[in-house]
Amino acid sequence: MDAEEFRRRGKEMIDYVAEYLENVEQRPVYPDLEPGYLRSLIPSEAPLEPESYEDIMKDMERVIMPGITHWHSPYFFAYFPAASSYPAMLADMLSTAIGCIGFSWAASPACTELETVMLDWLGKMLQLPESFIAGTDGQGGGVIQGTASEATLMSLLAARCKAVRRVQTYTSDKSEVEIFSQLVAYTSEQAHSSVERAALIGGVMIRKVPTDSNYAVRGDSLKKMVEEDKAAGLIPFYVCATLGTTPSCAFDQITELGPICNGENMWMHIDAAYAGSAFICPEFRPLLNGIEGHSTVGLNGFWYLKIFFCLSTPVNRVKKRTDIIGAFKMDPLYLKHENQESGLVTDYRHWQIPLGRRFRSLKLWFVFRMYGLQGLQAHIRKQVALAKEFESLVRADKRFEICAEVVLGLVCFRLKGSNELNQNLLKKITNSREIHLVPCQLSGRFVLRFVICARTTESRHIQQAWQHITQLTFELLQEPNH
Amino acid sequence: MDAEEFRRRGKEMIDYVAEYLENVEQRPVYPDLEPGYLRSLIPSEAPLEPESYEDIMKDMERVIMPGITHWHSPYFFAYFPAASSYPAMLADMLSTAIGCIGFSWAASPACTELETVMLDWLGKMLQLPESFIAGTDGQGGGVIQGTASEATLMSLLAARCKAVRRVQTYTSDKSEVEIFSQLVAYTSEQAHSSVERAALIGGVMIRKVPTDSNYAVRGDSLKKMVEEDKAAGLIPFYVCATLGTTPSCAFDQITELGPICNGENMWMHIDAAYAGSAFICPEFRPLLNGIEGHSTVGLNGFWYLKIFFCLSTPVNRVKKRTDIIGAFKMDPLYLKHENQESGLVTDYRHWQIPLGRRFRSLKLWFVFRMYGLQGLQAHIRKQVALAKEFESLVRADKRFEICAEVVLGLVCFRLKGSNELNQNLLKKITNSREIHLVPCQLSGRFVLRFVICARTTESRHIQQAWQHITQLTFELLQEPNH
Repeated sequence: MDAEEFRRRGKEMIDYVAEYLENVEQRPVYPDLEPGYLRSLIPSEAPLEPESYEDIMKDMERVIMPGITHWHSPYFFAYFPAASSYPAMLADMLSTAIGCIGFSWAASPACTELETVMLDWLGKMLQLPESFIAGTDGQGGGVIQGTASEATLMSLLAARCKAVRRVQTYTSDKSEVEIFSQLVAYTSEQAHSSVERAALIGGVMIRKVPTDSNYAVRGDSLKKMVEEDKAAGLIPFYVCATLGTTPSCAFDQITELGPICNGENMWMHIDAAYAGSAFICPEFRPLLNGIEGHSTVGLNGFWYLKIFFCLSTPVNRVKKRTDIIGAFKMDPLYLKHENQESGLVTDYRHWQIPLGRRFRSLKLWFVFRMYGLQGLQAHIRKQVALAKEFESLVRADKRFEICAEVVLGLVCFRLKGSNELNQNLLKKITNSREIHLVPCQLSGRFVLRFVICARTTESRHIQQAWQHITQLTFELLQEPNH
Repeated sequence: MDAEEFRRRGKEMIDYVAEYLENVEQRPVYPDLEPGYLRSLIPSEAPLEPESYEDIMKDMERVIMPGITHWHSPYFFAYFPAASSYPAMLADMLSTAIGCIGFSWAASPACTELETVMLDWLGKMLQLPESFIAGTDGQGGGVIQGTASEATLMSLLAARCKAVRRVQTYTSDKSEVEIFSQLVAYTSEQAHSSVERAALIGGVMIRKVPTDSNYAVRGDSLKKMVEEDKAAGLIPFYVCATLGTTPSCAFDQITELGPICNGENMWMHIDAAYAGSAFICPEFRPLLNGIEGHSTVGLNGFWYLKIFFCLSTPVNRVKKRTDIIGAFKMDPLYLKHENQESGLVTDYRHWQIPLGRRFRSLKLWFVFRMYGLQGLQAHIRKQVALAKEFESLVRADKRFEICAEVVLGLVCFRLKGSNELNQNLLKKITNSREIHLVPCQLSGRFVLRFVICARTTESRHIQQAWQHITQLTFELLQEPNH
C-alpha cells in the first residue's frame, strides 16, 4: 500500500469509523455467540500472497463486528467507561504516524516534554498541591502509565525500595529479601483486584482493611491492623487508598489515613482510577482533600477525560520524583544521551514497567484544548446527572433498592429479595442484549451496577434502559418459581 | 466535534499523515534544541474555553515537530526499528474506534478470539513446535504483550511462582519469601537491561553469564554458574536467553542451554525482541532451533512485522498456559462471566501485568493479510540486504573495522583507534543531524551501531549515510589533536 492508496483507504476508514460510532446504538450491545465462534470463520494460517483490502473490510462485518461488545453504545452500562472522543482519535492518528518510542528524552524530546507539561496542566486542573507539579525546577511531576494497574504496581515497587533502604539504615545486616518478608501493605477489602495483584508481583504481604457501612476504609481500622502487625514484628510500608471503588464508588477517608501513613513512614498511593478525573469540578474536588503530604496519586483519565484508556490514562503523580526513579534506574550505553545528567530532562523509562512508550500526551493536548476545562466539566456534570436520573427511577419503584450512595456515574441497585432473584434478573438482561450491565457484591448481597459509560448516552437511553429493566422484572416475577 | 466535523478533520489528518511520512526524509532526523524547549512555547495551564482545531494543528509544526526524533526517516539508524505501515495504521484507527477493553472474553469476544488465532498464525509462520499453538484444544498459546519488557517480566514471575510451588512440595515449612531469597535467575551479560529490571521487580537475584567471543552465552558457562550457586544453597529457576542482543545482535546457544534448563527444572524464556520476526524466513529459522521443550518465547513484532510497538508486539508464547495463568489469577465478581469456566475461553488479563487491553490483534490481521507471508519475508530480506551493503562499505575502508558478525539488520563498526576517537566521530554525526545512530560497548570498546530501521530506507540512503560518515571522519582526522 503506497501513500496514494493510503490517502484513499484512510478517508474511507474515517467514514467507516464515523458511521460505526453514529449508529452503534442500533447494534446489539452484547454479542450472541458461543466461545470459539471466530476460529471457524477464518483460515487457520496466514495467506502466502497479499489479499485485497476490500476482502479484509468485508470481514469486519462478517467476522469481527458480531463478536464485539460495544463499549461505546449508549446502552452499555457495564464495568466503567472506556470513553473516547473524536479529538482523541485524531491525536491518536498523529501519534501512530509519528511513531516514536519515547523511552528517553533524546528518543524524541517533544514526546517527553509535552507529557511533563500536560501533566502539570492536569495537576493544576485538579488543584493538586504545588509539590506535585514538575514546573521548571520542581521535584514532583507525573507520568502517563499504560493502565491503572501499572500505576499501582509502580507505586508499590517504589515504596518497597524506599522501605528497604530505610530499614537498612538501622539494620544494615538484613538482606533485601529478608526485609521483603517483613513488609506489609494495606488496602481496602473493596479495592480493585489489581492492588492485590501488585503485592503478589512485588512479593510482599498485603492485608485487606475492613470498611465501614459506606464501604470506605476509616483511620481506626487501618491503625488497628498496623499496630497488630508491628507487634508481630512486621514492617507496614504501603497503603493503597481508593477514591471511587469499583464495586460501589466508595471513597476511603484519606484525611484519616494520611496522618497514620505519615506517622508510620508508610507510602500512600491513591487509586482514583474511576473517580479521579471528576475532581476537575470544584464540587467534587473536596473528595480529594487530604492528598497534601502524600506520595503518589494514580488517576485514570479514561472516563471523564474522553481519552482512550490504553494511551493516556492513569497518571502516577510522584511527589518526589527521585523516589520513583531510584527504584529501577538502569542505564545501558545504548540508552545514554548527553543531556541526561543535566537535571533538566526526564527519562520516563525509569518511571514505568515497560521501556518503550508511545507519544501519549498528544491526546491530552488535543482533548484539553478542543474541550477546554469548562467543556470537560460540563461533560462530567452531564454524566453524573444521568446517573442521578437513573437513581430517581429506581427509588420510585418500591420493588427495588439503592445499595450505595450515588456520588458520580455509578448506581448500585437490586430487587428487594434474594441473591438468586437478582442473578436471574441479570441473566435476563444479559440475554436480551438490549442493555449491558455487570454485577458486584456488597455485604454479601448480589448487586447490579449501572454505570453511565458512553459519551453519547442521553436521557432517552436511561429511560429506555429502565423501561426495559422493569419489563424484564415484570416477566421474572410472573414466573411460577417466584 | 460532531461526526460531520470528524469526517472532515479526519480526512485532512489522513492527508497530513501521508504528507508527513512521504516527506520525512527532508526533516532533520534528530532535533536541534535544548532540554526544556517546549514549556515556553505553550501556556502553563489548560484553556478554559475550547480552542479551534486550526490553532492546534498550527502548533504541530511550531511546537511538536521541531522536537521530534524522526524514527521513520530513512536516515534513522538508531536503537531498533519502530516500523509501522499503512495497513497497520488503518487497523489502529479501527481498534481505537471500537475502543473495547479486552480484559476478559465477555468484554469483547472478537478481541480475545482474534488474538488467539492470530498468534496461532504467527506460531505457524515461525514453525514453532505444535505445543506452542493454542488450536482448539491445545494447552499452549500466545498473548500480545504491550512491550518486550512486559513479556520478560511475566515469564520471570510465572517461573518464580512455579519454582515456589515446586520447592514447597518437598519443604512445606518454607515460606514463599524465604524461597524467593534463594532463587537465582540467569541471563547474558549482553542481555537487555529490562531482564535485570524484571528480576529487580520480582525481588530475585540475577546473575550475568559471561559470553564467548561472539557475545553469545554457551552451555558450559551457564552450567558452571548453576553448579556454584547450587553448592551455595541457592535455587536456580530461570534463564532468559537472548536471540539477537541489543548491542550486537548476538545469538545465545539455546541448543546448549535448553538441556541444562530441563535438567535443572529451570524455566527458559527466549527474548527475541529484535530478531524474532526474522525467523519467518526459512534461511533464518535455524537460529531458533533448540526451542523445542522450553517454556516461553518473547517475540517483538515491531521491527519486521511492521506493526507499531505499543500495540501488537511482543508475543509471550506459553507452552503450558496454566503455568502463566496460575501465577496471577484474580476473579472479582465484576469480571466474572458465564463462559469462563468452560475451558473454551481465554481471559487474557491473567496473562499480563495490566488488566485492560486494546484490540491489538486487528493490526496483525491487517498486516498478515495485506502483505502475505511472502511480502513480509521480502521486506525482511530487503532490510538484511541493506545492512550487508553497509557492511561491505565499511569493510572496504581500511580505517574502519566491523565489530560483530552481521546476521540481520544491525552493523557494529568503529574507527580503528581509541574509544575517544569513536566518541568524537559519533558526536560529529549526532550534531550534523543528517543521520542518527547510537553507540554500544563491546569488550570494553566504544562501538557505533548502524541499524536499518525505516520501511522506506533504500540503497541510496545507505550510500548517502556512508558518504556522510566518511566525510565527517575525514574532517575528524584532520583535526590537530588526532
